Amino acid sequence: MSGDTLCTLGSQSVKLRREVYINASASIVGKKEGEGPLGLLFDMVGEDDMFGCETWEEAESSLQKDAVYMALGKAGKKPEDMRYIFAGDLLGQSIATSFGIMNYGIPLLGVYGACSTCGEALTLGAMAVSGGFAENVVCVTSSHFASAEKEFRFPLGYGSQRPLSATWTVTGSGAFVLGREKEEAALARVTGMTVGKIVDFGLKDSLNMGACMAPAAASTIAAHFIDYNSQPEDYDKIVTGDLGSVGQRILLDLLRDKGYDISDRHMDCGLEIFDADSQDTHAGGSGCGCSAVTLSAYILKQLAQKNWKKVLFVPTGALLSKTSFNEGQTVPGIAHAVVLEEVLA
Amino acid sequence: MSGDTLCTLGSQSVKLRREVYINASASIVGKKEGEGPLGLLFDMVGEDDMFGCETWEEAESSLQKDAVYMALGKAGKKPEDMRYIFAGDLLGQSIATSFGIMNYGIPLLGVYGACSTCGEALTLGAMAVSGGFAENVVCVTSSHFASAEKEFRFPLGYGSQRPLSATWTVTGSGAFVLGREKEEAALARVTGMTVGKIVDFGLKDSLNMGACMAPAAASTIAAHFIDYNSQPEDYDKIVTGDLGSVGQRILLDLLRDKGYDISDRHMDCGLEIFDADSQDTHAGGSGCGCSAVTLSAYILKQLAQKNWKKVLFVPTGALLSKTSFNEGQTVPGIAHAVVLEEVLA
Repeated sequence: MSGDTLCTLGSQSVKLRREVYINASASIVGKKEGEGPLGLLFDMVGEDDMFGCETWEEAESSLQKDAVYMALGKAGKKPEDMRYIFAGDLLGQSIATSFGIMNYGIPLLGVYGACSTCGEALTLGAMAVSGGFAENVVCVTSSHFASAEKEFRFPLGYGSQRPLSATWTVTGSGAFVLGREKEEAALARVTGMTVGKIVDFGLKDSLNMGACMAPAAASTIAAHFIDYNSQPEDYDKIVTGDLGSVGQRILLDLLRDKGYDISDRHMDCGLEIFDADSQDTHAGGSGCGCSAVTLSAYILKQLAQKNWKKVLFVPTGALLSKTSFNEGQTVPGIAHAVVLEEVLA
Repeated sequence: MSGDTLCTLGSQSVKLRREVYINASASIVGKKEGEGPLGLLFDMVGEDDMFGCETWEEAESSLQKDAVYMALGKAGKKPEDMRYIFAGDLLGQSIATSFGIMNYGIPLLGVYGACSTCGEALTLGAMAVSGGFAENVVCVTSSHFASAEKEFRFPLGYGSQRPLSATWTVTGSGAFVLGREKEEAALARVTGMTVGKIVDFGLKDSLNMGACMAPAAASTIAAHFIDYNSQPEDYDKIVTGDLGSVGQRILLDLLRDKGYDISDRHMDCGLEIFDADSQDTHAGGSGCGCSAVTLSAYILKQLAQKNWKKVLFVPTGALLSKTSFNEGQTVPGIAHAVVLEEVLA
């Protein structure tokens, strides 16, 4: 009978007894992301960042709607085939999600983990499927450069200058159809996860989020190695979400202090999605959409094509709001790790 | 082997094969809530609504911290016994949660469903335990009158008048320790759940949230009856979160139209927590904390004392933000139902 045995590992990890398939995924991005190094890999690139909408928030909602539509289409599924949707974004009260996915009529479990939300959605979606609570679910997250700047920092119209440690919020959304059964075009398997703790090093600079999130990424990755009794060499790639160039250096240093050298296999979605030299994005890309679209457009394809066999996917989030920042609070971080493996024949 | 069979029902429900125990719970509320009809039932009542903090947001964080502390204490558990914490609140980027529960070091899965978040946290927490992904988890949600007014409507200093359809956000937090094994003081069992869809009747009045949420409550409750092939008479109480007096009337009408009369067993936490005549709270209480503290202080005690055998607990949420409201969007609703049953000897 189900649930009679635990599938927990160590202090914060799970190794799924029944693995879950990512049967399809889709990505949609803005113009700037389309001009970046991964540009040709995305399923859809907007001509401008309004996507035919009246406001940035509506534009972000349309990204989630389109990503889910494309992912369902690739999976050959209808909305009513999805028992639950696990969805989130960066905006206050997750309005990009509410207004984006409402019309599908799929029961919604809203998640929030800042830019780590893609990892959280996949974690909970995989638990729901693996545990027998759903046959198929869809996971989706999004971010939008303009709605995020307005939400967290300054209205774009101010023309504020940004320090070199700042990241550029990715305009984009990635959606993933998870299922109990392997479909023909299955891209990868979710085989386990390590849920992150909040880690606060006391940093307060919302324009250096890489530094705020790196300690959380190091904490989760080290906990994963310990819980799984594994080593960096067990993974072809260890992929963080949006640490950028500043956060990456800190992560590698922190993990070296803990005895792990991941420098030869670390990849950061924020460093892949933009060309730092030509695109003026400073430390790299960020946002709930950054890791989601990079996972869909690039990482899952590497797994599907068997170029990589096993990836530790670790989206990273900075837990702040305008209010907490203005009240002088720190910017703690969180990161959730998901183990992705190639589909076996 | 676990997960080999689905435990899904109908289109959006789950009937847990392995039931989950609510082994302990705790509630903390503000001064006004302490003066209400349930005042003597809460575990802790603040002398004022700052709870010794500098800001309302910090005060709300302290509510979550204290509720978790008390619930763990009653359960005889330590933070490290909890594999995950499912937590959320109403503030942008869930900062009451981040800064409230950070120091426990429990791996965090942040959830957002507006005032329905308590139902969502219990749903996901029960799935995690039932599915074998955790032995024990803790679920916590909070709201605070002053932080919510600032977040959604007007700064309190404006002294804005409120229409009679408005609800009063409850200052409070409720925490619940869920476990695979029945502890001696176990309060109730979680046996199933119905995850809600977003329902939008096109209403735009953020000062009449009962009307905005009632259609979602009706949708989830009706879906629950259909999925479970059950009737209102199968439950001793059907408890919504914070519809208030306006929303309650709409809910009862909508369900009558669908062929269900729940009027003799419907209870709304928002109507229980304040005395409408003497406390000037207009349509009733609301917020993520309203259903959570009422569940902990009142509903679970009725189940523990065997006064009620089976309750359908349906927290209700209004999916809006300041931004979506100012941009002229509607206020859709969502509601998640959790089946709570008495503990069997």
